[in-house]
Amino acid sequence: MNARIAILGATGAVGLEFLNLLAERNLPAANLRLLASSRSAGKSMQYAGTELIVEEVGPESFKDIDIALFSAGGSTSRHWARIAIESGARVVDNSSAFRMDEGVPLVIPEINPEAIGDAKVIANPNCSTIIMNMAVWPLHRRNPVERIIVSTYQAVSGAGQQAMLELESQTRDVLAGRPANPSVLPVQTAFNLFSHNTAIDETGYNIEEVKMIKETRKIFGAPDLAITATCIRVPVLRAHSESINLSFSGPMSESEARSILAEAPGVTLVDDRANNRFPMPIDATGKDDCLVGRIRSDASRNDGRGIELFVCGDQLRKGAALNAVQIAELLLN
Amino acid sequence: MNARIAILGATGAVGLEFLNLLAERNLPAANLRLLASSRSAGKSMQYAGTELIVEEVGPESFKDIDIALFSAGGSTSRHWARIAIESGARVVDNSSAFRMDEGVPLVIPEINPEAIGDAKVIANPNCSTIIMNMAVWPLHRRNPVERIIVSTYQAVSGAGQQAMLELESQTRDVLAGRPANPSVLPVQTAFNLFSHNTAIDETGYNIEEVKMIKETRKIFGAPDLAITATCIRVPVLRAHSESINLSFSGPMSESEARSILAEAPGVTLVDDRANNRFPMPIDATGKDDCLVGRIRSDASRNDGRGIELFVCGDQLRKGAALNAVQIAELLLN
Repeated sequence: MNARIAILGATGAVGLEFLNLLAERNLPAANLRLLASSRSAGKSMQYAGTELIVEEVGPESFKDIDIALFSAGGSTSRHWARIAIESGARVVDNSSAFRMDEGVPLVIPEINPEAIGDAKVIANPNCSTIIMNMAVWPLHRRNPVERIIVSTYQAVSGAGQQAMLELESQTRDVLAGRPANPSVLPVQTAFNLFSHNTAIDETGYNIEEVKMIKETRKIFGAPDLAITATCIRVPVLRAHSESINLSFSGPMSESEARSILAEAPGVTLVDDRANNRFPMPIDATGKDDCLVGRIRSDASRNDGRGIELFVCGDQLRKGAALNAVQIAELLLN
Repeated sequence: MNARIAILGATGAVGLEFLNLLAERNLPAANLRLLASSRSAGKSMQYAGTELIVEEVGPESFKDIDIALFSAGGSTSRHWARIAIESGARVVDNSSAFRMDEGVPLVIPEINPEAIGDAKVIANPNCSTIIMNMAVWPLHRRNPVERIIVSTYQAVSGAGQQAMLELESQTRDVLAGRPANPSVLPVQTAFNLFSHNTAIDETGYNIEEVKMIKETRKIFGAPDLAITATCIRVPVLRAHSESINLSFSGPMSESEARSILAEAPGVTLVDDRANNRFPMPIDATGKDDCLVGRIRSDASRNDGRGIELFVCGDQLRKGAALNAVQIAELLLN
């Protein structure tokens, strides 16, 4: 990789993963500009054996930058995206700010790279959406999916680095008989799980679930696709798991689903019934691929059109930073 | 309670919960006989302020016993149930040995108490089955359920007391940077989750999932009820959670489902959207009731016949010991 890249939100959990991924791609340190709010400015970060100083983001930050990778809050993204574009950069934004905007492509490179066109801002989907879609899309394009019923088992990394540190320190407290005292996440995470901590709308769905529903429809170009989601946080550090029930428009056998997924880009099959080895978050952690297994015909129907499966994906990699870097690679090619 | 009760498997996680429940019901210590294999015989256990010595189970163990509560392996149950019955006792068995036997009632007291009749052996259902059915039955009896799609978040207590101790000690190891070294459960439980550790059959379902499917049909008296289940173990100590998608034969509004469940015995509604408070395993722990919430119309359908909900229940109480003690109370009344 030989472009000029800026990272806005360099010090967060996703920002750190951006650095790992760009170093793997041999981006020279001189091509990289680390940006953050004034709170994190001046901080020194390791990149490919050298130290980079985080700069405070400002009106001049995006001069000469080809691609700006944003991992910040929605309003921060909206503000600086305009300035980055005026400076001539293209923005890959990890927040939810632009995702549902008409004219802003919402992209998973394995699924809809053609949506990018000449857009100046490309939105990176929600982490749970990406991980689900990596398993569902290869099947959907062969035999349109009519309905998705998904229940998630989401790692705390989705709530940021502080939530990961809290899970560890709180677990130590609980093991020592001390009270849990949650502060980053709203309730105890240690040895517990809970409905995703986003607001609930009038339909009873939380924002995370609504993202999975609406974003999947946009990415698949299937505005009427029937989807329901239940999003749950579990005491896992950084890989999401999802139990997915699919209804297809035509027959889909277990063996057909397995062979389609075996060839799908970005997917690794982990489906060893004899040894009871299936996708687990600790095995997905740090991996680029999403792990898919427990592939079987849905026992609750007799028309051969239902498939159940289980997927795990690293929330910080394919769920966030990796997908954004893959979009950047598309922009550069 | 004033019967003569024997507990077979008194030293296990469910056995300990039997003692708690019988003490709450003021069963005199003199009426209680604690039984186990030779390995645990001679062990002393606290019961309502006194010490009871665990006896090795033998041919004379069930003399003068009214009710024998069994929490042992399936083959142990089969062997001693015959002897207990010949001694004049009635057996409530917590293993899977008798559950699907024709002529053996499989009972959840809130659902099918009439099934008991004059049976000598009454089977206690699987923990995940009980917890799901506590939420589904009250709705089903008002508006027959046509299809259940469930994904579980199961505590390690289902694998016994040693699995609970292992989760704690292994979590300490992982937090200290030591390897996980699983021995009770087959893989790392700390900060991880995995497909339930029972054998997978030729359909791709594991034994836990098959139990949920077959036992629910038997308990509901609905042999053709369409069910699919995905059973997953999570790093939680002793309460199971389940994400349940229901299809009804007629329209079922969210408000109707909520008001039915608000009145259901053994169920507590925890469904506070404004404060994002829903069922959590730490809140279900030690509780008799199953907690039900996230009740909402299924967004993936437009015929008003789908409901989503989330339930948590203490695996050792309603999922095992409490349900068995409630059956014993029915036998005594």
